Amino acid sequence: MDYRQLSLQKHAEWRGKIETVARVPVDSKDDLSLAYTPGVAEPCLAIQADVNKSFDLTRRWNTVPVITDGTAVLGLGDIGAEAGMPVMEGKCALFKAFGNVDAFPICIRSKDAEEIIKTIELIAGSFGGINLEDISAPRCFEIEKRLKQDLDIPVFHDDQHGTAIVTAAALINALKLANKQLDQIKVVINGPGSAGIAIARFLLAFGVKDISLCGIDGLLVEGDPSLNPAQREIAKLTNLSRKRGSLKDGLAGADVLIGVSVGNCVTKDMIRVMADKAIVFVCANPVPEINPVDALDAGAFIVGTGSSEYANQINNVLVFPGLFRGALDVRAATVNLQMMMAASLGIAQCVSEDELATDYILPKAWDKRAHEAVAKAVAQAAIDTGVSKLYR
Amino acid sequence: MDYRQLSLQKHAEWRGKIETVARVPVDSKDDLSLAYTPGVAEPCLAIQADVNKSFDLTRRWNTVPVITDGTAVLGLGDIGAEAGMPVMEGKCALFKAFGNVDAFPICIRSKDAEEIIKTIELIAGSFGGINLEDISAPRCFEIEKRLKQDLDIPVFHDDQHGTAIVTAAALINALKLANKQLDQIKVVINGPGSAGIAIARFLLAFGVKDISLCGIDGLLVEGDPSLNPAQREIAKLTNLSRKRGSLKDGLAGADVLIGVSVGNCVTKDMIRVMADKAIVFVCANPVPEINPVDALDAGAFIVGTGSSEYANQINNVLVFPGLFRGALDVRAATVNLQMMMAASLGIAQCVSEDELATDYILPKAWDKRAHEAVAKAVAQAAIDTGVSKLYR
Repeated sequence: MDYRQLSLQKHAEWRGKIETVARVPVDSKDDLSLAYTPGVAEPCLAIQADVNKSFDLTRRWNTVPVITDGTAVLGLGDIGAEAGMPVMEGKCALFKAFGNVDAFPICIRSKDAEEIIKTIELIAGSFGGINLEDISAPRCFEIEKRLKQDLDIPVFHDDQHGTAIVTAAALINALKLANKQLDQIKVVINGPGSAGIAIARFLLAFGVKDISLCGIDGLLVEGDPSLNPAQREIAKLTNLSRKRGSLKDGLAGADVLIGVSVGNCVTKDMIRVMADKAIVFVCANPVPEINPVDALDAGAFIVGTGSSEYANQINNVLVFPGLFRGALDVRAATVNLQMMMAASLGIAQCVSEDELATDYILPKAWDKRAHEAVAKAVAQAAIDTGVSKLYR
Repeated sequence: MDYRQLSLQKHAEWRGKIETVARVPVDSKDDLSLAYTPGVAEPCLAIQADVNKSFDLTRRWNTVPVITDGTAVLGLGDIGAEAGMPVMEGKCALFKAFGNVDAFPICIRSKDAEEIIKTIELIAGSFGGINLEDISAPRCFEIEKRLKQDLDIPVFHDDQHGTAIVTAAALINALKLANKQLDQIKVVINGPGSAGIAIARFLLAFGVKDISLCGIDGLLVEGDPSLNPAQREIAKLTNLSRKRGSLKDGLAGADVLIGVSVGNCVTKDMIRVMADKAIVFVCANPVPEINPVDALDAGAFIVGTGSSEYANQINNVLVFPGLFRGALDVRAATVNLQMMMAASLGIAQCVSEDELATDYILPKAWDKRAHEAVAKAVAQAAIDTGVSKLYR
C-alpha cells in the first residue's frame, strides 16, 4: 500500500481531520439568552473577578493548541508554517481520539524565537496547556524554556520530550528481553537535534551512564567549538571518554542505537559492529535510518521505528494524548521530569511479561488502555510533586 | 427568568460551549498511516509546493478564529482577555450552528494595536478568515485596517460591521412600515464608538443623508479637537448643519434613534421629541439604552434591542455566520462593502411583506433560512466584485 499517494487523496476528500462542534443548544430565544446575550455577561464577570474561573466556565480546561513554525516537520525539515498543518491536524485528531483533549492546530509564520514566544504568550489565556511541535533546534530549546518560565500551564515540546518518553519506555521493555540493565548499557544516539538531546537527558535521568551523541561530523565531544549551545551542554554529560570518530566508531560494542536523524543513513555494517542482542531504534520519519529487515538481517536483536508500517512503532502518539489528559485533569502548572518519567513507566507497564516479545515491546498506538495508563501516572506524579492546582 | 444567574450555573455545568472532534478514523495501523505518519508527509509537501493547497488539504477553508483582547466585551467594557472568552465561545457555537463554520475562540493578552496585529498576522496561516470581536475603539480601526491590507483572507470586525449590517437590515424593513425613505430620514446614532461610526458609514453608503452622532459630551461636530481620529473623520460626513447640543437636542424631529452606547441613558422625554412613527433601536448589551416598554409608551412606533428578551432583536448573530459561510464558500480574499450591503438586503428580504409588523422586522436569530440567505447573497457579491479566489 502506498500510504503517501493514498494519504494525499484522502486528505483532499476529508478537507480537514478535525472540526469544531457546538456543545450547547442554540435553537430558541431561551437558548440564546443563556449561551449568548444577555446571560453570558455573568460568566464573563465571574472570570473578570477571578481569572481561574476561565478553567471552570469555558473550554479552556480541556483545550490545547498544537503549535508549529513549520521548521522541522516530520523528517522533511523547514517546509513552511502552513505546510506543517496536516501534521498538526493529525495530532489534534489523535489528541481527541486517545486523550479526549480538544486540540487545535496553529501555525506561526515566523522563525524568530522571540516572535514565536511573544505570540504564544499573548494567546495563552485561551488554553489549558501548550503543545509545541516540529520546531527546529536550537530555537525550540529557548522557546520551550521561556514559555515554561512565563506561563502557569503545562508547556510540552513533543518532539523533544514525547520522543524521549516513548523511547525510554521502549528501551525499558527491550532491556527486559535482552536481560541488560539501564546503568550498564552503552547507548549511541544519532541525530544531535532537539529529540536526540532530549532523549540523552531523559535516559541520564533514568540512570543510563554511557551515552554518546553523533552528528553528521561524527561523535559529539566536549569542547568542540562547532557545537551549538544545546549540544555543548549535553556534550559535557555524554561521551565521557571523549572518543572521536564516526557513527560506526561509536557503535562498536554499543548495546543500543537510537536514531532520530534522517532516512537511510545507517548501514548493515554499522549494525554488525554493535554488541550482542543489539537494540536498534531507528525513528526518522517518514523513512527510518535503516530498513528494519536489513537491521535484523545484520544481527539486531530488537528493531523499532517511528512508523506504523513496522513492528515496534516508537511514536510519541503513545505519549502526548495521555500526558496532557493527566496534566489537564489535575490542572498541572507545568510538566516536570517526574511526570515525564511516570509517563514512560506507565507506557512500559502496559505490556505484560507474557506479551513482551522482540516484535512487541510497546502497546499499539490505538490501545486506549495505554493512554489511560499514561494519564493516570502523569496526574499522580503532578499531585505528588505539588504542581497540581486542584489537588495538593 | 433571570438569565444571568441561570447562565452562570449553565456555564459551570457545560464547562465549554464548543469542542473539537476528529473527522477521520484513527483506530488501526492503516488509519494512522493515512491520517498521520508516514502518509501525512505527502499533503505537507503538496502545501509546501503551493500554499493554496492548505485550503484543500486541511480544515483551513472552513476555520475562523473569534479573536478578542477583552477591551469592549458586551457593554461591560475592558474586563480582560480571558474574561471575554464566554462570549467568544458563544459566538463559536453560533458560527457552527448557523453557518457550519468551524470557529475557535482566541483571547489576546495585549492592548497594544501593533502587538495584536502582529500576533494575528503570524497565526493567520491557520485560518480561512479572521473574525475580530469586542475590541475597543479607536484601536479596533487600526487593527482591522492593517489586517485587511496585509492578509488575503476575509477580515471582519463584527462589532463594527456585523452591527452595521443588521441595523441597516432592520432599518430597511422598519422604514417600509413607517412608509419613509432612506434618503429622507433624520438619524441620530448615540455612541460614537466602533459600532456607531460603522453604522453611520454604512447608512451613508445606503443613501441616508442626514445622520448625527452623539457622545457623552453631546452631538459630534466637525473640528472639535476633543474627538479621536475616527470620530473626526465621521464628523466630516455627518451632522452637516454643524448643530451643537445634547442627545435630546439631536433627537428633536429625528425619525430614527440608533443606540450603541450603554444601558439606561435614554429617557422617555427624549423619545417624545422625535418625529412621528419614530424608529428606536436601542442595542446596548446586556441592558438597552431604554426599556422597550418605556420607549413604546413614550410614542415610539417600532422598538428594537440587541437582546433576545424583547421583540425585534437586532443582533449581529444574524450576520456573522452567513457572512463567513458565503465568504469561505467562494474563498473571498476580503470582505468588501458590496458583500456587506448584500448581507443587509439578504436579511431584510427574509421577512415577507405579509409577515412584516412593528414587532417583527427581522427574522429570528435561529431561523436557518436567514443565514442561508446571507451566505448566498455574500457569496454572489464576492464573485460579482471579483474578490473570489475560486470563481471569477
